[in-house]
Amino acid sequence: MKLLSTFFFVLLTLSSLQAQTTKDSIMFKRIADEVFTNGKAYENLRFLCKQAGPRLSGSPQAEKAVKETFRMMKEMGADTVCLQPCMVPHWVRGAKENAILVDAKGNPVSLNICALGNSVGTGKAGIKAEVIEVCSFKQLDSLGISGVKGKIVFYNFPMNPTYIETFRAYGEAGQFRGRGPGMAAKYGAVGVMVRSLASNIDDYPHTGATTYNDSFPKIPAIAVSTRHAEWVSNELKKKNGLQLYFRTECEMLPDVQSYNVVGELRGTEFPNEIITVGGHLDSWDLAEGAHDDGAGCVQSMEVINIYKRLGLKPKRTIRVVLFMNEENGLRGGRKYAELAKAENKKHLFALESDAGGFTPRAFGFSAGGDTLARLRNWVPLFTNYGVYKFTEGGGGADIGPLRSLGTTLSGLSPDSQRYFDHHHAANDTFEWVNKRELELGAVNMILLLYVVEQNGL
Amino acid sequence: MKLLSTFFFVLLTLSSLQAQTTKDSIMFKRIADEVFTNGKAYENLRFLCKQAGPRLSGSPQAEKAVKETFRMMKEMGADTVCLQPCMVPHWVRGAKENAILVDAKGNPVSLNICALGNSVGTGKAGIKAEVIEVCSFKQLDSLGISGVKGKIVFYNFPMNPTYIETFRAYGEAGQFRGRGPGMAAKYGAVGVMVRSLASNIDDYPHTGATTYNDSFPKIPAIAVSTRHAEWVSNELKKKNGLQLYFRTECEMLPDVQSYNVVGELRGTEFPNEIITVGGHLDSWDLAEGAHDDGAGCVQSMEVINIYKRLGLKPKRTIRVVLFMNEENGLRGGRKYAELAKAENKKHLFALESDAGGFTPRAFGFSAGGDTLARLRNWVPLFTNYGVYKFTEGGGGADIGPLRSLGTTLSGLSPDSQRYFDHHHAANDTFEWVNKRELELGAVNMILLLYVVEQNGL
Repeated sequence: MKLLSTFFFVLLTLSSLQAQTTKDSIMFKRIADEVFTNGKAYENLRFLCKQAGPRLSGSPQAEKAVKETFRMMKEMGADTVCLQPCMVPHWVRGAKENAILVDAKGNPVSLNICALGNSVGTGKAGIKAEVIEVCSFKQLDSLGISGVKGKIVFYNFPMNPTYIETFRAYGEAGQFRGRGPGMAAKYGAVGVMVRSLASNIDDYPHTGATTYNDSFPKIPAIAVSTRHAEWVSNELKKKNGLQLYFRTECEMLPDVQSYNVVGELRGTEFPNEIITVGGHLDSWDLAEGAHDDGAGCVQSMEVINIYKRLGLKPKRTIRVVLFMNEENGLRGGRKYAELAKAENKKHLFALESDAGGFTPRAFGFSAGGDTLARLRNWVPLFTNYGVYKFTEGGGGADIGPLRSLGTTLSGLSPDSQRYFDHHHAANDTFEWVNKRELELGAVNMILLLYVVEQNGL
Repeated sequence: MKLLSTFFFVLLTLSSLQAQTTKDSIMFKRIADEVFTNGKAYENLRFLCKQAGPRLSGSPQAEKAVKETFRMMKEMGADTVCLQPCMVPHWVRGAKENAILVDAKGNPVSLNICALGNSVGTGKAGIKAEVIEVCSFKQLDSLGISGVKGKIVFYNFPMNPTYIETFRAYGEAGQFRGRGPGMAAKYGAVGVMVRSLASNIDDYPHTGATTYNDSFPKIPAIAVSTRHAEWVSNELKKKNGLQLYFRTECEMLPDVQSYNVVGELRGTEFPNEIITVGGHLDSWDLAEGAHDDGAGCVQSMEVINIYKRLGLKPKRTIRVVLFMNEENGLRGGRKYAELAKAENKKHLFALESDAGGFTPRAFGFSAGGDTLARLRNWVPLFTNYGVYKFTEGGGGADIGPLRSLGTTLSGLSPDSQRYFDHHHAANDTFEWVNKRELELGAVNMILLLYVVEQNGL
């Protein structure tokens, strides 16, 4: 009898599990269908790219983006929308930047360059010096002061094409953009030119933040297009001691006030359990910031649109956060975590989309205990929508500071093959975002938020 | 003792399996690295798109593509390259095509249209008639002769955006392009306008083959851009009986001779076991045929490049086939199967890439017995390169006729979200193919060919 009752108990449990799965699967489809038929992400992205435009922290365009996304979330029906003030760096590129290499035959050739973000400028006169190529810090060290002093260091380290995940190649090559100027200044270099962090060979220079080493002078730093990096390298093989001139008028102005934009759907059962979802509202100044990270912003806001359209009310509070200043300071992300720490609420989960509006493949998770293992039970339901794995490790720069609160972090991992053709360059424009890919990313994000707001972690 | 020996046998088998897996995994990486560092697919595609251009069967550009891909395979070191003659239809668009709708206010508005492939033309005078909109054959049937006779039928059936796989929506909506003119002629329509088979809303008309019903007159048929389809539909809601004029000068000329281009790597152990891999060399005339199907051609040819560069010799014969006339006749595919049937060889396996040069996700298989189940053991090794599932059903139009020989068929399934923004339209150009995505597709194709040539099926 006991055996029989156990049997029926198991059967009931299984069939109730089955019913739940069917129910979830139907809800998944309702959400996806709604995004594909009545989604606003694509048109919101168009607005952000074409009406606001490049949104570097401290710029009028960034302020416009704050105002307009505030309006968007209001109009989509968020329960509350508010602004979180934070001070942000105010770096400006200035009007003029150019570079000329005197090639192996003695002819001046204009290079496709741009100043690196946060770099000091050369001033109107520019700088002119011998350019030397290195492809590692070890090589720089071995050249030492005698080899480097008074020269312009040209870091020419290509992104490794054999890494299937392009972010791995970006991480490896990125150290030269980040630490290169500081390292070169240590040996007395007067300037730095970095090969653009791009997967492809083309004419766009790619900017991005650099940092300085406080023990040494701040020297001007530029990025050169990959095609010109290859060309300069080739010229240097023909003849040593070539002269490079460049001029940049960028400068760091005093900090200004800006904002994170925060919209909420209040939880009906556990309003004090907070689920954060977001992207960063700022972008580099060279383009529209379509993939980086307009896409993440409009995908995040889409949860409000879809929940309101479907009449869904989350059990836990969903907070859409458009972070300011990810690109050159991370002040918005830090401010958000600081305020989160101060409020008496449980920050359960945070999801970021900041890897482009491409077709989704996975979510990455930074989670404790068996959280990831339990979440993985949901993967089969996601597979129908293109996400087929939940991987270990993940989150995003803006939500990173929440980890110290014990928040489980997650990042959307879209296909990475195309990202670094556009990242931080003038071709990161709306035209290069595909509507269906953007929406499919939003679908998966909303599905994950749904799972967590319904079931907790 | 017997137990112990069984134990050791199992242990040995497992460790030899493990060693094999490691060996395969190393070979997989060698192949992938070679494609990413010394691949020719992207530059070959550039040539095909920019130097040959649109390659409709019977056109001079198609002939140029035959000649140039013959050269490419020779230069890459194929053991043999030959041409398989076949007669192909020779449809030409003619110089002029245009359409004008007199809108609800009585103003003439020019529409973005193109003739459907294989359609008859209107002649220089064009046709002018009342346009009626239908969105199903059932609706057409219910209108009958009294509702349709003397009119132009406008099929306005959008691709369903809620289908995650866009090919499903294409299949559903495609019936109107394919059978629409025949069905409308049955009720006395004088012309047909079909909403373009596109996922997005834009200004490109998308062509593609139509067919006629021999029992009824052949009437001219055009495709209209999705944006104009929506607009015309809207105008018809305002006012019935609007007049549409269109002119097309397309015509079907007598068949001409063309060719499949066939390059071989001869098998060292089983030369009479044939593994076919291919794409179709012809394209529509409106664009460069970059995704459809220049991508499949250059990916297929890449196996020759990589095998030769790595000094690999296949156990079974690998035959790269660039099929002619997939778009409007399938004559090349049929000819190839006919010749395959006649030769005394075993056609073990055929793989086609004809779904665009996008990031790969899966292979589909049409296979008998437990072939697919056994092949699935390889999926974990493919997952590192982006293909994470082997699905049931698949192949390609060109290799389809081989199925009657018992050949196992497979098709590469890249991500389908973007395909129908470009398919058969003027924006199917080289610029919209990403180098890494194209190469990653080629990588997975070569890996699959490697598995089959080494292990059989």
